[in-house]
Amino acid sequence: MNERDFLLALRELPLHPGAADLRDDTATLAGLTLTTDTIVEGIHFLPGDPPEDVAWKLLATNLSDLAAKGATPEGALLNYPLSDDAWDRAFLAGLDTALRQLACPLLGGDTVSLPSGAPRILTLTAIGRDAAAPPRSAARAGDALWVTGTIGDAGAGLAIEQGEDGPAELLAAYRRPQPRLAEGRALAPLVHAMMDVSDGLLIDAARMAGASGIAVAIDLAAVPLSDACRAFRGDGRAARMAAATAGDDYQLLFAAAPDFAPPVAATRIGDFAAGAGLTLADAGEAIPLPSRLGFEHAI
Amino acid sequence: MNERDFLLALRELPLHPGAADLRDDTATLAGLTLTTDTIVEGIHFLPGDPPEDVAWKLLATNLSDLAAKGATPEGALLNYPLSDDAWDRAFLAGLDTALRQLACPLLGGDTVSLPSGAPRILTLTAIGRDAAAPPRSAARAGDALWVTGTIGDAGAGLAIEQGEDGPAELLAAYRRPQPRLAEGRALAPLVHAMMDVSDGLLIDAARMAGASGIAVAIDLAAVPLSDACRAFRGDGRAARMAAATAGDDYQLLFAAAPDFAPPVAATRIGDFAAGAGLTLADAGEAIPLPSRLGFEHAI
Repeated sequence: MNERDFLLALRELPLHPGAADLRDDTATLAGLTLTTDTIVEGIHFLPGDPPEDVAWKLLATNLSDLAAKGATPEGALLNYPLSDDAWDRAFLAGLDTALRQLACPLLGGDTVSLPSGAPRILTLTAIGRDAAAPPRSAARAGDALWVTGTIGDAGAGLAIEQGEDGPAELLAAYRRPQPRLAEGRALAPLVHAMMDVSDGLLIDAARMAGASGIAVAIDLAAVPLSDACRAFRGDGRAARMAAATAGDDYQLLFAAAPDFAPPVAATRIGDFAAGAGLTLADAGEAIPLPSRLGFEHAI
Repeated sequence: MNERDFLLALRELPLHPGAADLRDDTATLAGLTLTTDTIVEGIHFLPGDPPEDVAWKLLATNLSDLAAKGATPEGALLNYPLSDDAWDRAFLAGLDTALRQLACPLLGGDTVSLPSGAPRILTLTAIGRDAAAPPRSAARAGDALWVTGTIGDAGAGLAIEQGEDGPAELLAAYRRPQPRLAEGRALAPLVHAMMDVSDGLLIDAARMAGASGIAVAIDLAAVPLSDACRAFRGDGRAARMAAATAGDDYQLLFAAAPDFAPPVAATRIGDFAAGAGLTLADAGEAIPLPSRLGFEHAI
């Protein structure tokens, strides 16, 4: 089954009220925020990736979902496939660093053995507390669309990982994404809707608009690029389109009233209006949507 | 790495107080009990197993860990690898049945795609509430050792699954284990230590004694066998040893004061004493330990 059909089928099962009909990246229970992600060797990471970076990314991407709810990490459960000594020890070293730097202690987990030759599949479940929990579905017509930080650095980093020449700073943005926990806590009580940018700015913005039942317009010229990304890719329309459709940014995308003054570094990139769908402009000139808005996933 | 070394290394990472030093099957947080299990095709289930049964077992074995804490299921998170339509739809049907019959609604989860030919790996995280939470490590010298229900039915069911002739009742015990939730709730406030029997009666009893820093003696003749199991395997020492070293029973094993009168169907099978290790008797006659006490796992 594809993800969409599977998700639709899951919605027919007995659901907990805290599942919010499986329409968001997190669940809520007893004041806690729960999120879980599985990553697969050969799909989400490559066999040659440093195990330390795999550990970082596994924790950081889960914590990014907590950041989008304004939650503070409380603990994590790890489901781990045992393999060779060197890989496992390097993973543990990376996990130690990630748990310490991201202030999220380990709560428990499970280990398994895999059949010979099977790709590694790792799952982490993160639990947060004190969420203000803006949903992704409450953007309003008239709201402005904002994004924290810069967009496209991780996409450029992936190109560098795949062989292009480029600075370590961009590669690090891909391998060691930073969950925007402090920004999330500051923004969550103030904004109407928020989510993290994991699959691409355009696709995630379209999802926020779709979940909210309204339309969104983005101006590519407003999308914030880092100096390093501009030096790597240039600053033209193609470079901006590449940035806006690459995944793995883990910045926060949010909708707020038109007069909103964000308490953290963020850039206004568009507007919500009555209607449906995503429209694009470049410095005010309407341009067609690209054939691919980002990476397609379901829950 | 092997599971033991990996677990020892995990204990050096930043741990949450609710992890209880990773010495139990569950973690506690904000009054909730958390447990997670991963199952692997070719290791924990076979490619030809009915997907409905795989779904049942995935939920039931997690809820068995909650039962051992006297907890009531609150919800579950599912991490699922999408595959072919028929398998996925059968799994969803089995999950629907399991969630309904075991009264545990779905909270959320994640879906992934796997590389072609990769074995299915499924993870479920179950969350319970209102645990009385007897640890596995608080059995006392002088306590009696008890077990609920009957032992060995699932082991006989596995032999039937692998080709022996035998009754559907035993096969069902293997494929559709029943977490002892009601028994767990009744026992948890009254007993000193409790755990579920997942890897084999002897190995799990030895673990309880080891975690409690004392010795345990079990009389094989007291181990409760079902009528079906006796008809299938006989009632001799070999049959009882097979039952006591097979896994997947998911009964509750508990330590209680010598004058304890259990409020549920349970059988007294041994005694704890000062010292260390497991000793076996058969109707009072000391007998040697088998070479294998059960299945070896870590967390």
